[in-house]
Amino acid sequence: MIRMQTKTEVEEASRRRARPCRRVLDALLLCTGDMEHVDEQMKEKSFVLQLAVWGLRGVARVILANNPLSGALILAALYWASPWQGLLGTLGILASTLTAVIMGQDSAEVSGGLHGFNGMLVSLLMGVFSSAGDWYWWLLLPVCLCSVTCVFLYSGLTSLLVHWDLPVAVFPFNIVIILYLLCTGPNNPYFPHHPAVPPGVLQPNGTNVIAVEVLYGIPLGVGQIFACDAMGPSLLILGAVVLYSPLLAAHALLGSAVGTLAGLSMAVSHASLYSGLSGFNGALGCMAVGGFFTFSWTTNLFSIASAFLSAYADIALGNLMGTVGLPACSWAATLTATLMLLLTGSLAAYSIPIGKVKAPEHNLKSGHRQWTAGNTLERDSIV
Amino acid sequence: MIRMQTKTEVEEASRRRARPCRRVLDALLLCTGDMEHVDEQMKEKSFVLQLAVWGLRGVARVILANNPLSGALILAALYWASPWQGLLGTLGILASTLTAVIMGQDSAEVSGGLHGFNGMLVSLLMGVFSSAGDWYWWLLLPVCLCSVTCVFLYSGLTSLLVHWDLPVAVFPFNIVIILYLLCTGPNNPYFPHHPAVPPGVLQPNGTNVIAVEVLYGIPLGVGQIFACDAMGPSLLILGAVVLYSPLLAAHALLGSAVGTLAGLSMAVSHASLYSGLSGFNGALGCMAVGGFFTFSWTTNLFSIASAFLSAYADIALGNLMGTVGLPACSWAATLTATLMLLLTGSLAAYSIPIGKVKAPEHNLKSGHRQWTAGNTLERDSIV
Amino acid sequence: MIRMQTKTEVEEASRRRARPCRRVLDALLLCTGDMEHVDEQMKEKSFVLQLAVWGLRGVARVILANNPLSGALILAALYWASPWQGLLGTLGILASTLTAVIMGQDSAEVSGGLHGFNGMLVSLLMGVFSSAGDWYWWLLLPVCLCSVTCVFLYSGLTSLLVHWDLPVAVFPFNIVIILYLLCTGPNNPYFPHHPAVPPGVLQPNGTNVIAVEVLYGIPLGVGQIFACDAMGPSLLILGAVVLYSPLLAAHALLGSAVGTLAGLSMAVSHASLYSGLSGFNGALGCMAVGGFFTFSWTTNLFSIASAFLSAYADIALGNLMGTVGLPACSWAATLTATLMLLLTGSLAAYSIPIGKVKAPEHNLKSGHRQWTAGNTLERDSIV
Repeated sequence: MIRMQTKTEVEEASRRRARPCRRVLDALLLCTGDMEHVDEQMKEKSFVLQLAVWGLRGVARVILANNPLSGALILAALYWASPWQGLLGTLGILASTLTAVIMGQDSAEVSGGLHGFNGMLVSLLMGVFSSAGDWYWWLLLPVCLCSVTCVFLYSGLTSLLVHWDLPVAVFPFNIVIILYLLCTGPNNPYFPHHPAVPPGVLQPNGTNVIAVEVLYGIPLGVGQIFACDAMGPSLLILGAVVLYSPLLAAHALLGSAVGTLAGLSMAVSHASLYSGLSGFNGALGCMAVGGFFTFSWTTNLFSIASAFLSAYADIALGNLMGTVGLPACSWAATLTATLMLLLTGSLAAYSIPIGKVKAPEHNLKSGHRQWTAGNTLERDSIV
Repeated sequence: MIRMQTKTEVEEASRRRARPCRRVLDALLLCTGDMEHVDEQMKEKSFVLQLAVWGLRGVARVILANNPLSGALILAALYWASPWQGLLGTLGILASTLTAVIMGQDSAEVSGGLHGFNGMLVSLLMGVFSSAGDWYWWLLLPVCLCSVTCVFLYSGLTSLLVHWDLPVAVFPFNIVIILYLLCTGPNNPYFPHHPAVPPGVLQPNGTNVIAVEVLYGIPLGVGQIFACDAMGPSLLILGAVVLYSPLLAAHALLGSAVGTLAGLSMAVSHASLYSGLSGFNGALGCMAVGGFFTFSWTTNLFSIASAFLSAYADIALGNLMGTVGLPACSWAATLTATLMLLLTGSLAAYSIPIGKVKAPEHNLKSGHRQWTAGNTLERDSIV
Repeated sequence: MIRMQTKTEVEEASRRRARPCRRVLDALLLCTGDMEHVDEQMKEKSFVLQLAVWGLRGVARVILANNPLSGALILAALYWASPWQGLLGTLGILASTLTAVIMGQDSAEVSGGLHGFNGMLVSLLMGVFSSAGDWYWWLLLPVCLCSVTCVFLYSGLTSLLVHWDLPVAVFPFNIVIILYLLCTGPNNPYFPHHPAVPPGVLQPNGTNVIAVEVLYGIPLGVGQIFACDAMGPSLLILGAVVLYSPLLAAHALLGSAVGTLAGLSMAVSHASLYSGLSGFNGALGCMAVGGFFTFSWTTNLFSIASAFLSAYADIALGNLMGTVGLPACSWAATLTATLMLLLTGSLAAYSIPIGKVKAPEHNLKSGHRQWTAGNTLERDSIV
């Protein structure tokens, strides 16, 4: 007699068959997203191991990811592009994270890597702008001091911005790198550096833009977030973002493309188009909206608007600061992202309180409705 | 028998005799002040008609008036001075008001024209600074984009400034026009523009200031608020202010005169005295105190102080921003007005909560005592 | 029979012997610290006498002291260095204090000298930068106007910064002096001034730094807070700080030394090392932490960090503002001190609410534990 299989039996069987495949997938899934389970396992481990995880989270925080594996991939990409730059970045992140521990900063912030990424970015940019060449060991001294200063600024700005539930983001990095470059000046006998070239100075005299090179500039724009202008490491950095959240990676590429488009419309120099420099602010601006708001069509439109705003503001600030030989860094994207978080109206309904930001996929699953309520409540209690 | 007329009968008779005269006056009075009755009538009208009223209110908001008829007069003055400028202004106000509607901004703000005036000012200034000549149709593209950006900035800055009960005023306009001019630069192949001339660069070498021309500059200072330097349209704009509130118009002229005086004391170039450029920041600074505080002798003294501060700060900022070829726009007046609203002490007692600002005549009638109480309460609840 | 002296009798005897010495000490102690007893005695005195005490407190407030005798010593030092500068300073402090009285500012603030010190500093700096020579009487006009403007800015910024329990400090001075210098410009026919020389412009070409002159620069750095570059008056100013609080004086010298060290490490011009210009921001930054936080080893380390930050930021801002011929004034120290007050973590535990700041010795005696509680409560009620 043929027995009719019940629904649950069929499901169980299919589940049994899928198990080996499932296990691989589960293992993979454990490496994506915010990897909160790592924090649990780390609690009884040694301080050095904990510091390493905090540091790697910090590396990934630059691109709004919160995943130590992404951080490790990015650090590998930096060492691949230039071992000296990799060393500077590592030193920067360790110096600032340790300073935060010593200064008694909030332990949740420290273990989330929030105190490390500004120090790391400052160190990388100091290496890029230094005209003393690689392996100039004296540079390690200002690198440590500037990384420490970032922690001071992060802590101070947090007190200031918490009134509006705004993240400090990369404001400390932008302030400290500008102060360092101003302080040393191009002819400093100990720490000389290249002056920055504003994007609009070199005009296209006769030669046309090469379309393929411009397209190459789009993934390079993601790498330029870490001041890296080689294709291989840039793709590895993009891969690190995919590991954390494919949605965020899509935003990064979209933003970089928008930034390049904005650069074309303003006839910026070919060099900044090809190197991805005109794309990276767009990428950051787009990722900020993609990361700090729940995913929806409205948010998507706003993220494109944010990318355009960031890219145009970057050209403007680049021209302004270029008159005194300074780079615009990521001022444009940071200011634009802050503006987006302050917006009222239809975008505000999708905003996530900064303490609860996770991978976009996670926010998508849990549904955004709970945030709108929680968000309003939290904002009310702050005001 | 001669009947003694009672008092009420005499009054009634005089009222009857005054009626035709009264009716004209009533009709005129309906067109002055904030014209709130228009909003009532508009509620069931078509969206296009409503949008027109919102836009016209927005045009008038630049000079702190909130009256669609004033807005219509000003728009007529702009078309009279230059049809191209009129077109740009109209496009700017429509683009920004529509964006505010689409972005789901507060409907009371939209219908009060608060989202339109920044977009309009940006469009006008982009036309004035463009060196591509009138009817350069490609300019409409950045005009629309910049007007849209103004709405983003207005919304974001509102969230920021609401903590101190401060109005956003023309901060978005000032930010966006500076970013646009920086972004394009003087030699941009698509959108070239004239560099701004700082007020203190041209020194009076031998020639004396012509008193009559300086006096001409005073009403021109009111027109320069809309970047209009012709006498006829400037007087029409002044007329539009008189229609809204004669007191505010007196403040505008007084402020422009103070600004011209400040310009004379600092020996600015003759061109900026004669064109009204040295007067318009004084006019705005004086009007801001006249409009945001109830009328009294104390307020009057502060409005003169505000005009002086605005005018001197404008010369200072003009010299600073002129070094990189940028205009000072109305930064000086906007910052001074913000400072005045933050003042504690004797001026603060006359301050009106920004949500309740109406024509100065209206505030005069209702008496300021009620605001002092309400104001304190509101500020307490915000803190 | 030899009577055994009881403990209390011994103490009483030693007290009796110490009396004459004690009386001198008591009289001296009355002149140190905050001298609150003066306020009691002044209540029934004439307005002119009260104004003098308010003014002298204001003079001392520049170096975070609140003691009329210190103020008198400093004023004497200024008259000693240059009678014209002394006159300008006196005029500045009187103009701004009187304006504050007329504008109805908080009487506790006025009598504490909080409205005077910005006006005084502006006046001194206007005298130093003026290239019209001493006793150019027309300068008194802008000196009065700028001192008045300082009161406006002080009042407005107080409303802004009270949300974070931050002091306004010398922000008004820094803003007004920059606006004045920008407004007049170097070639103004009425009020010409010397352009500022950025610290990093003159490079050490061959000549070595003279160690003794650099050491001379350290006490001069304390005098430079009042724009005074002579050794005698600088030492008198240092003596005035010792009178208020020896701990604060130690911080001043330590900070000036740190600033000079920072200047050496960045190879700034010899002139700014020898004149104390590279030390005074360090001194202010160090004193701010020493004055606004209770004394402890942690605070001490932070005060050295604050001195380094201030000094390096001063070099950076000096180079930036020097490109348009402006001095960096005390922007660096003011911003750094503000940052320190915003810090969270281990330093925040030692912070004193700004309304309760007294001489460091007084805070040391009363113990810091009461502030940590009070501080937290106050901050909570503000948020």
